[in-house]
Amino acid sequence: MQKPGTLTATSTARQVRLACRRGAWSGPTAGLAEGFVQANLVVVPADVAGAFQEFCRLNPRPCPLLGVSAPGEPRVPELAADADLRTDLPRYRVFRNGRLAEEVLDITACWRDDMVAFLLGCSFTFDAVLRAKGIPVRHVELGCNVPMYRTSIPCVPAGPFRGEMVVSMRPLRPAEVIRAAVQTSRLPHVHGEPVHVGFPEQIGIGDLGRPDFGDAVPVRDGELPVFWACGVTPQVALERARLPLAITHAPGCMFVSDVRIEQLLETAWEQ
Amino acid sequence: MQKPGTLTATSTARQVRLACRRGAWSGPTAGLAEGFVQANLVVVPADVAGAFQEFCRLNPRPCPLLGVSAPGEPRVPELAADADLRTDLPRYRVFRNGRLAEEVLDITACWRDDMVAFLLGCSFTFDAVLRAKGIPVRHVELGCNVPMYRTSIPCVPAGPFRGEMVVSMRPLRPAEVIRAAVQTSRLPHVHGEPVHVGFPEQIGIGDLGRPDFGDAVPVRDGELPVFWACGVTPQVALERARLPLAITHAPGCMFVSDVRIEQLLETAWEQ
Repeated sequence: MQKPGTLTATSTARQVRLACRRGAWSGPTAGLAEGFVQANLVVVPADVAGAFQEFCRLNPRPCPLLGVSAPGEPRVPELAADADLRTDLPRYRVFRNGRLAEEVLDITACWRDDMVAFLLGCSFTFDAVLRAKGIPVRHVELGCNVPMYRTSIPCVPAGPFRGEMVVSMRPLRPAEVIRAAVQTSRLPHVHGEPVHVGFPEQIGIGDLGRPDFGDAVPVRDGELPVFWACGVTPQVALERARLPLAITHAPGCMFVSDVRIEQLLETAWEQ
Repeated sequence: MQKPGTLTATSTARQVRLACRRGAWSGPTAGLAEGFVQANLVVVPADVAGAFQEFCRLNPRPCPLLGVSAPGEPRVPELAADADLRTDLPRYRVFRNGRLAEEVLDITACWRDDMVAFLLGCSFTFDAVLRAKGIPVRHVELGCNVPMYRTSIPCVPAGPFRGEMVVSMRPLRPAEVIRAAVQTSRLPHVHGEPVHVGFPEQIGIGDLGRPDFGDAVPVRDGELPVFWACGVTPQVALERARLPLAITHAPGCMFVSDVRIEQLLETAWEQ
């Protein structure tokens, strides 16, 4: 029996989910259950679920769809057979009319028979792949959150969902820029290749030192800032859609699936 | 019967080779027989052929080996069944003791029974792929040669072959940098992904306006200079090796093979 606070990189995905379900873990999932794919959660009512799925299809870089539930079913068995999406994440955000209403550890109380859950690829997976390839990831090395910025790059709208892309930034040396672009292009389920490199002002970012989400990290001499589409993008689209009710994971508190990163790589290669 | 000077983009590879064989074409092959793979030629005596092949194996980005002849056999049937490498290129360079001795239209006179021919991937193929993907190639648009630079990046030595890598440069906008890196990473037979982006001084290039080979092209505001390993690298290694006799194609006057670019792409993907 696992005690609170004892989750580590060598925990299994199931151990993480069960700790969340018991209320024994309510913090970030970065670094837990290493090797397992983590995912962003978006829950919307069935009447706009088709539009949200179309939004993901049209914007695969920020919204790489890993799985979707049946209406009212709080599970995506392909990603974790025994998981309950209402309880198995550390922490959730509930949005009402496009505004953050509350942050909770469990969404059983506000779950409804018409809710549809979407699981989207997350860059935690992607940072693990970069590091495994010997490419240093600044925010991981500094032990802080990745810096994220609102951009002027428009998403393709679908139904009520629209808005600009949010990007994450990693500073890299030139040879690493190329290797990181090539490696991440092989990971379409995890945001794929970068969307920009080198000139933040070209995509509407005024000051790299002041990210809109996450923490600033230094870009050193001889490095280029490299920008990837970010899973926070759908949260911006949810704000814009002003739905009566929508739910996401809390930032950094992801769904940990039973899918291993290698399986995702193989699937990606087949595309 | 093809007349001199009538070779075009729609000529077949065989038409180009036969025109060269007759002495009816002695100019650059850029833009001829579009869709067919062109190749750099390097001919060395059999006693150093093993070392040169090892040099190619150790330095696959500048020296992507497409085919090698048997000693004394001036043909690589996999690339063109009926070709004769002594006559079927527009123009050749003969090096004696590491120095350019003469430029000739035919190497039948200096061919020997111990000569081994190597055909290496060439960026003409690669520019065609970039353009087909909608990525503009500055030197093609300007109708000049690609700018090439000696760098401080050392090749891995093998036998008498050593020296620094030569790179070609294409200026691109940031989103194109990423697409070009990803696309060319799928072309290991044609130099693969870039070796550098953004900071020429980091790889020993002092002035982009003064290339060591080819023509300068402008890098415009908001663009990054992107550097790929270049097929001129083996010529530098040949100079350093000071062989009594070695032969290459003349710059821009390539071997045009019967292999279609699509076939090369398929081969590349299988790796």
